[in-house]
Amino acid sequence: MAESFADLARSINEEEGFIWKIWTENPEAQEAGGIYMFETKETAQKYIDMHSKRLAGFGINEVNAKIFAINSKLTEITKGPLK
Amino acid sequence: MAESFADLARSINEEEGFIWKIWTENPEAQEAGGIYMFETKETAQKYIDMHSKRLAGFGINEVNAKIFAINSKLTEITKGPLK
Repeated sequence: MAESFADLARSINEEEGFIWKIWTENPEAQEAGGIYMFETKETAQKYIDMHSKRLAGFGINEVNAKIFAINSKLTEITKGPLK
Repeated sequence: MAESFADLARSINEEEGFIWKIWTENPEAQEAGGIYMFETKETAQKYIDMHSKRLAGFGINEVNAKIFAINSKLTEITKGPLK
């Protein structure tokens, strides 16, 4: 299983507009997810559409995703990684 | 207002366990927020408690916060910024 996730991780690097992903886990709530950085709203939305279908193929239908814009001036002050 | 947010941003850099923050905005949903990296769950929780009280002082009572663990092996593959 760990190996197939590593393959998935490597494939994500190839997605259009993809910059980085932090893989998150919440064992207590039995949730797994991620924080993604994409170049544009459009490429992020495209990934959500594709990934939701892929997860449905694994039998996972409950997917929550939200796209945010970034305030880069404030993010720069707090050392937020934008690249 | 922008200047007071910059002051707030600078003060966040001084919080215990703080590593970085990305400032997020969702103008359509009139939501603002952030993705934070902290050294430990405990320092993250301490920040949430303090910041929730601070926001209440600004008249903002609806605060959603969630702490996640990170899968660092997978995050490394996808170039996720952990520092």
